[in-house]
Amino acid sequence: MAQPADRTVHALLQSLHRNGVRHFVIAPGSRNTPITIAATAPGSPFKVWLHLDERSAGYFALGIARQTGEPVAVTCTSGTAVANLLPAAVEARLSRVPLVLITADRPPEARDIGASQTVDQVGIFSGHVKWAADLPVADASAIGDLERYAAAAGARAAATACEAPAGPVHLNVPLREPLVDAESETLPFEIGTPEVHRSPAAPARPTPGDLALVARAVEARRGLIICGPESSGLPAAAIASLAAVLGWPVIADPLSGMRAGHHALAAVIDRADVLVREPTFTGPATPEVTIRFGAAPTSKPLNTWLAGLDATHIVVDPAVAAGGGWRDPDLRAAIAIAADPGAFCSALLESLDARSAARAEWLALWCDANAAARTALDEAIANLGEPFEGQAVVDLAGALPEGATLVAGNSMPVRDIDSFFPNMDRAVRLVGTRGASGIDGVTSGAAGAAAVADGPVALMIGDLSFLHDVNGLWPIRRHDLSLTVVLVNNDGGGIFSFLPQRTSMPARFDAWWGTPHGLDLRHAVALHGGRHTLLEPGIASSAAIGDALLRPGLDVLELRTDRDRNVALHQHVWARGVEAVRHAVVAARA
Amino acid sequence: MAQPADRTVHALLQSLHRNGVRHFVIAPGSRNTPITIAATAPGSPFKVWLHLDERSAGYFALGIARQTGEPVAVTCTSGTAVANLLPAAVEARLSRVPLVLITADRPPEARDIGASQTVDQVGIFSGHVKWAADLPVADASAIGDLERYAAAAGARAAATACEAPAGPVHLNVPLREPLVDAESETLPFEIGTPEVHRSPAAPARPTPGDLALVARAVEARRGLIICGPESSGLPAAAIASLAAVLGWPVIADPLSGMRAGHHALAAVIDRADVLVREPTFTGPATPEVTIRFGAAPTSKPLNTWLAGLDATHIVVDPAVAAGGGWRDPDLRAAIAIAADPGAFCSALLESLDARSAARAEWLALWCDANAAARTALDEAIANLGEPFEGQAVVDLAGALPEGATLVAGNSMPVRDIDSFFPNMDRAVRLVGTRGASGIDGVTSGAAGAAAVADGPVALMIGDLSFLHDVNGLWPIRRHDLSLTVVLVNNDGGGIFSFLPQRTSMPARFDAWWGTPHGLDLRHAVALHGGRHTLLEPGIASSAAIGDALLRPGLDVLELRTDRDRNVALHQHVWARGVEAVRHAVVAARA
Repeated sequence: MAQPADRTVHALLQSLHRNGVRHFVIAPGSRNTPITIAATAPGSPFKVWLHLDERSAGYFALGIARQTGEPVAVTCTSGTAVANLLPAAVEARLSRVPLVLITADRPPEARDIGASQTVDQVGIFSGHVKWAADLPVADASAIGDLERYAAAAGARAAATACEAPAGPVHLNVPLREPLVDAESETLPFEIGTPEVHRSPAAPARPTPGDLALVARAVEARRGLIICGPESSGLPAAAIASLAAVLGWPVIADPLSGMRAGHHALAAVIDRADVLVREPTFTGPATPEVTIRFGAAPTSKPLNTWLAGLDATHIVVDPAVAAGGGWRDPDLRAAIAIAADPGAFCSALLESLDARSAARAEWLALWCDANAAARTALDEAIANLGEPFEGQAVVDLAGALPEGATLVAGNSMPVRDIDSFFPNMDRAVRLVGTRGASGIDGVTSGAAGAAAVADGPVALMIGDLSFLHDVNGLWPIRRHDLSLTVVLVNNDGGGIFSFLPQRTSMPARFDAWWGTPHGLDLRHAVALHGGRHTLLEPGIASSAAIGDALLRPGLDVLELRTDRDRNVALHQHVWARGVEAVRHAVVAARA
Repeated sequence: MAQPADRTVHALLQSLHRNGVRHFVIAPGSRNTPITIAATAPGSPFKVWLHLDERSAGYFALGIARQTGEPVAVTCTSGTAVANLLPAAVEARLSRVPLVLITADRPPEARDIGASQTVDQVGIFSGHVKWAADLPVADASAIGDLERYAAAAGARAAATACEAPAGPVHLNVPLREPLVDAESETLPFEIGTPEVHRSPAAPARPTPGDLALVARAVEARRGLIICGPESSGLPAAAIASLAAVLGWPVIADPLSGMRAGHHALAAVIDRADVLVREPTFTGPATPEVTIRFGAAPTSKPLNTWLAGLDATHIVVDPAVAAGGGWRDPDLRAAIAIAADPGAFCSALLESLDARSAARAEWLALWCDANAAARTALDEAIANLGEPFEGQAVVDLAGALPEGATLVAGNSMPVRDIDSFFPNMDRAVRLVGTRGASGIDGVTSGAAGAAAVADGPVALMIGDLSFLHDVNGLWPIRRHDLSLTVVLVNNDGGGIFSFLPQRTSMPARFDAWWGTPHGLDLRHAVALHGGRHTLLEPGIASSAAIGDALLRPGLDVLELRTDRDRNVALHQHVWARGVEAVRHAVVAARA
């Protein structure tokens, strides 16, 4: 007979699988041995991944879940290993990615009495998980009920992780010794387990009353659709259709899923970050109403401008009334609609009249200025004649083929991608960790994407973030993954050079904010068996990136820049863009 | 005028300093700018340290606090950065190390509305900190009260962190923009702040009733003093004096502080891990009573043997009645005394009669067997003629000069140190992270020790642990520290080779427990500007370690071993030791 723990763990895992968990990330240990045994057993239905650092393992699982939209399990042993999962849990909660954290624990009688590797794991993720359960210890005397409990817990965990807004859940699994049983491999994955039937075909639709309210608010008005970051991507075609009927521009954050794809791109604004810097444009371009999907956009100038408007802001988010989030950081929303964005667009389209021709001028104002800004920025970058971090975005964008995924690093890379990544008629997926926007775990998330993506995966990342999660490179070789990293190395925290303390306290700035690390990052690439290439100005770096995207394994293409110079170059390029916007406004008036 | 936030942050930091915080670890960011400005201001009384990875920064601070016994501050920006401090908080709580975690936060009005880098930081460390406060936002209209509140919070934080049992506390500091003020450098560190007067001169003494109870229990009995790990070290001289009067052996965990120093070493047993494996010894060596100081010993054979005895176990721990811990993982204690170990020894000595000569035989039984085991182990190791992980302990112990610190890595290194590190009449400090015994953060803790230790610092660590905290090496070069690392590399989790699954499921064992990483760790050393040396068998590795201890900077001396062979060699060496114990018992009877 299998041990009781083997039976309850088996019931738990089988139930997770029945309810949509296909990927299982294991951080090795002793206490989670029964879980490892079950997940790796012959006939196991899971694709199993190994990671040696639990912090990175959590983010690796997050990367898989973000890419697939499926709940992903990650397990670790008891003790501080569990605490290492908190950063990924925090990010998954805020960026709405379904994770099932399965932490092995000592049994209750070993808790808080000084036993080794025993910490208080019950509730350790506090409000950062959607649901948490401390499972009962397996016991032969009640094994039937305990198996049913474990199966129910697995079903609830997977379903709760996926229910909008998606997020992490925590199953704490106390295990009593012995942890290994000679027969533990023999349980087949076929015992019946309860299955929670979710209803993915019925996303939350706005009520008729809500729809009428929105329809009145948007009818015959100058409006904007604002699309912010969304881990699962926004419904691009539905939003584009709505925009076409309303005659509104779509301001597209790079992580919204609106900039690249086969939907209508004509009304998609990819240079809002520059447009809103020019007052002669923002005056006539002021909307009366906005509809917002996704999280707050990355661009601070855009958010600041929007927050200063006297406009009616409509936030559409299924989490509004679910205690799962509130996406209005500037507190300007007049109407918040708890609905799925796709369902909202369909319902609103049905309730609207055909497009009013009166708005052609409004749309042209935005699109013409956007086109002028894009051309001016491209030209300014092409004419710099020296390494520029924005150039890396342009080169990378040019190299990404249909079906590729680009993972945007936080701090400067995502902002540069916002500024310089163009609309493209290719299905390229852009993702980032914009829940908490930390610089940690970014490489691990990209490795997770690489583990499951159909096409090539690229990561654009800064040097501090790369260094922070250097362990995130480990699975690339272990699991024969392929990842192309564009590493922008300005030897420190380049984004801080945009802060006032750079000029107000120059004596201390570099030591405590600029923080040069002085490391040659080629050694980190060598440690993980990757190829390293220095991207030199003048060389066809887009081709080099394109070649790397075709190769298996790890490629790190490093662009070395200077932090002070980077600020000057950004200001120069933005100035050229703003200038072009100003000219476009004048031309439109003439 | 300085901004209100500068004034409250200044009051907080000044109060921390007044109450014993001398070291301040900064993980750079934007939101914690006012804290960074104050800590690094001209005239700041703090020794300020920089770290680029918050997880490592937490452990680095822990290393400083463990070495100095002082509360150490660590600060980071808002978001997942905060979550990265949890592992060190968990460890500090269980290993009783005083830390003050100062996390910058967005102001309350930015919380839970989708604002960037804003996560739920209030209570994020849950029960893993001794005390937590969410400070009020600075406001000019009530600045006097707010300054006083901040000063009181700083005093309470430092005092609470230090009060036995020491541990971490959490100050969450919401900060509203602007974060930088032109005058923020000008506040002098001299404004009066409340100071909490703790009473370090009055440690908890046992009551007369408790003393009488213990005196009756120990009088004229065969007993053992068991000394387990203690971050701050146990009172070696007082315990040695008590042992001498009682005529009892002292079983010394390597992290108890009892094995190395200028106290009486004659009764200190350093080979208990081997002694208790021999039944002909454990029969006559069975105690009637034990007195236990510190946490549970590292040795599993020892703990298992003790748990099986029909003896009266007395646990002495100031935390017993403070809700701060319970050091009896095998649940065998008959008497738990809430007292400081030093005060307990003094008080008990006063209440005991002079030593009974009847116990000389009892003590000799233990000491003779211990000496025999030690000789046999040393000879067995010397005669192996191939690389052995235990040899690294012997070589390292021989190289450590007076005043040195040895940081013991978890998993195998601390167990090998337990098995093979000898008693020595040199003041060498042995420390480890035995609160939760995780393999994470070990290098960072050693770097923290190196930051403040008077003598040289050595770290003995395994390859998985080294890789897990590779970022922990970063401060060595940044802050011109010196650290000698003895890296035992068996390409995976060597300790798992001692588990039953190695033989019961050999097909899966190496992939999911052995977990070879396949990395050449020289690249990690090169990344951080260290020197790398391969310790070859036959070469005088003790001399190589000794040379490294004299050099500034980072030295990594790597011993490459084989995991399977390691099990066989341990079993061989232990068998020789057990054999010698058996012979010693026979000789004593003859």
